[in-house]
Amino acid sequence: MNSNSTYTSPRAEAEDKAAKARKAAASLAVLTTEQKNEALELIAAALVQRTPELLAANEIDLQRGREGGTPASLLDRLKLTPERIVGIAEGVRQVIVLPDPVGNTLQNIQRANGLQITQVTVPLGVIGMIYEARPNVTVDAASLCLKTGNAVVLRGGSAALQTNLKLVEVLRGALAGSALPPEALQLIEDPSRASADAMLKLNGLLDVIIPRGGAALIRNVIENATVPVIETGAGICHTYVHEDADVEMALPIALNAKVQRPSVCNSMETLLLHREFAAAHLPHIAGAMKEAGVELKGCAETVKLAGDAAQFQLATEQDFATEYNDYILNIRVVSSLEEALEHIEQFGTRHSECIVTASDEAASAFLDRVDAAAVYHNASTRFTDGFEFGYGAEIGISTQKLHARGPMGLPALTSTKYRIQGNGQIRG
Amino acid sequence: MNSNSTYTSPRAEAEDKAAKARKAAASLAVLTTEQKNEALELIAAALVQRTPELLAANEIDLQRGREGGTPASLLDRLKLTPERIVGIAEGVRQVIVLPDPVGNTLQNIQRANGLQITQVTVPLGVIGMIYEARPNVTVDAASLCLKTGNAVVLRGGSAALQTNLKLVEVLRGALAGSALPPEALQLIEDPSRASADAMLKLNGLLDVIIPRGGAALIRNVIENATVPVIETGAGICHTYVHEDADVEMALPIALNAKVQRPSVCNSMETLLLHREFAAAHLPHIAGAMKEAGVELKGCAETVKLAGDAAQFQLATEQDFATEYNDYILNIRVVSSLEEALEHIEQFGTRHSECIVTASDEAASAFLDRVDAAAVYHNASTRFTDGFEFGYGAEIGISTQKLHARGPMGLPALTSTKYRIQGNGQIRG
Repeated sequence: MNSNSTYTSPRAEAEDKAAKARKAAASLAVLTTEQKNEALELIAAALVQRTPELLAANEIDLQRGREGGTPASLLDRLKLTPERIVGIAEGVRQVIVLPDPVGNTLQNIQRANGLQITQVTVPLGVIGMIYEARPNVTVDAASLCLKTGNAVVLRGGSAALQTNLKLVEVLRGALAGSALPPEALQLIEDPSRASADAMLKLNGLLDVIIPRGGAALIRNVIENATVPVIETGAGICHTYVHEDADVEMALPIALNAKVQRPSVCNSMETLLLHREFAAAHLPHIAGAMKEAGVELKGCAETVKLAGDAAQFQLATEQDFATEYNDYILNIRVVSSLEEALEHIEQFGTRHSECIVTASDEAASAFLDRVDAAAVYHNASTRFTDGFEFGYGAEIGISTQKLHARGPMGLPALTSTKYRIQGNGQIRG
Repeated sequence: MNSNSTYTSPRAEAEDKAAKARKAAASLAVLTTEQKNEALELIAAALVQRTPELLAANEIDLQRGREGGTPASLLDRLKLTPERIVGIAEGVRQVIVLPDPVGNTLQNIQRANGLQITQVTVPLGVIGMIYEARPNVTVDAASLCLKTGNAVVLRGGSAALQTNLKLVEVLRGALAGSALPPEALQLIEDPSRASADAMLKLNGLLDVIIPRGGAALIRNVIENATVPVIETGAGICHTYVHEDADVEMALPIALNAKVQRPSVCNSMETLLLHREFAAAHLPHIAGAMKEAGVELKGCAETVKLAGDAAQFQLATEQDFATEYNDYILNIRVVSSLEEALEHIEQFGTRHSECIVTASDEAASAFLDRVDAAAVYHNASTRFTDGFEFGYGAEIGISTQKLHARGPMGLPALTSTKYRIQGNGQIRG
């Protein structure tokens, strides 16, 4: 594989590679779990064995990034090291030990006319992944898709192109020694937006597109795809602290939700405080956030209650509707659980929402009524994650309601098929 | 409700009604099964009680149709009679007795850190239905959505506008005496294409759009929706008769698949005959199809084997790719199961596919390898239907692989939510 493309257009490349993936998918669907696991083991070994090649290819991307003025934080996400490659290979081995979700019987229906209908799980077919700079996504997506018997068309970001080319070369090399067809892994080598846009229209060749990345990437996929999409990513998450909450419970949960890793979708953007709790504890909460390096914005009542020391900016409607993914927090005082629910209904993205309360009744009302993938009582929203849920792996966190919602483990990469056994039944 | 719209644009109407539905959805989600069933019982009773009003409204549509030269078959689909209204009300009562799929626990996960994660089923939220002339779809969709705690925005065809306005008036009138908010049912009164197109972009207000209707309607939804869609409808279904098949088994199955109701998606468009079977039985099969009023197209070998009497036209590639939904059938001779699988892979729409064979081995290979929602051994493809599967009701037949595949009963109208109970857990 090399990047001297022979294709006449981005569409031609996407179509050709998706067609090859679809052809491979037909044979993947009938492989045994052992065959798939053997292939994954070969992949894990090849990644470690071919570390020098991977580092060399990665260095080309890093060099280009440094020359182009890429920020240090992005370069760090792009960078491979021998330790990181070992970690990526370890991730593949974690997928090997997970149960294979394909071939399970979900239903047996015996009809009066003698028809025996069995609903079984099957691979989705061909999955399109559109993502940005982190090269580990290339291997994660490949291993999750192959484990579930799916072919995959990968389209990573231009910043990681040389790394991705080499990674896919290594992975396909490993598949060549396995029962899995190397064509099951396809990498789009044209990193222009046109190549992603071409993928979005490949109905009949791609069964689903999963975008992973920033808001602009996801929005482009949602707005332009005719292929079904699983939306991931956007998270404006709230923590609501009820009037009866213990500050010793509320503060660590709020701090963790905000600062343990602010750049991710399950971190908190807005803290809602019941008026009585705020009157007693706002200065303490605000001080702790400040100390953790958090810039604070507050509603008018928050600003008043906090006094001068906390240096709040006044939060606007726009602030409440913003996913900061950064050390910035909105605080709003509400007069009731009802008002907190209304705020979350208006500004939440239905990702992860938390109530801190000593009242089981308030907790039940919150968990029943908040419409979100994950609703928490007395725990940090940061736990919305496939690994933290015990799924062992994650292809993303769905923020839509169709097909899969919340952290998506291996079962989210399957569909179903009805197998019907008859003995001549016709419909009357 | 009347059709003197006060909206300034199709978009304004769609947005306003979807927003009202979303507001209603919040209260629907927490209703009990009993409350929902009581509302459905009121709806069933009101439909029968208000039959004269419904017939009068329907007559306006019929009159307009007759004046506009609408074909008799379409007028028949549009027409309400007292008996048909009783049948529609009976359909609502059948939904009442079905189990409520909302509130079921799918998983209990106990984490080592003490987090208790429960995955429960919840309503999807707000469902957009875009459909054509049959007024029974209005009531079917409303009852299925309400039973599952969903609000619904209905957008039927212009031919049934007066009937639909009256139906929704009757349904909302019934809801006014129930625990369910009448705003849970919304009907778009502007039957222009612009109103459907506006619905397709209502991300955040609609959770899913389900199109029901002809190919052009479905294609428009797929190509223009940014809201997630469940694709329904297209069916190029095949019956493959293996070399060892008993003609006494094969002929009734093929005939039933073709002529029992040719206008629907699970009827057969192409019959694939193994060469040995064709050599022995093609004239008999072709004669029986002719006798049933089927126009025949065949591959070159079919035409040769059949002789002059059957009057085959030569089938083109285009014919094999066409969903006739009519008394027309392609017949193709294949030399092996493998060639049948290739034909189905190329031309099938992954809906319903059948093999007729005495060989369990051939049947297994076919059922394993054909990628379709429903794969049959020795039974007519006409059984792909929610009622025939024992689901008691059906909102449509999904032809995509995400979320739901094949006949969609009540569970297809639900999503899930993770409820997480902690005691102060934060992420390390």
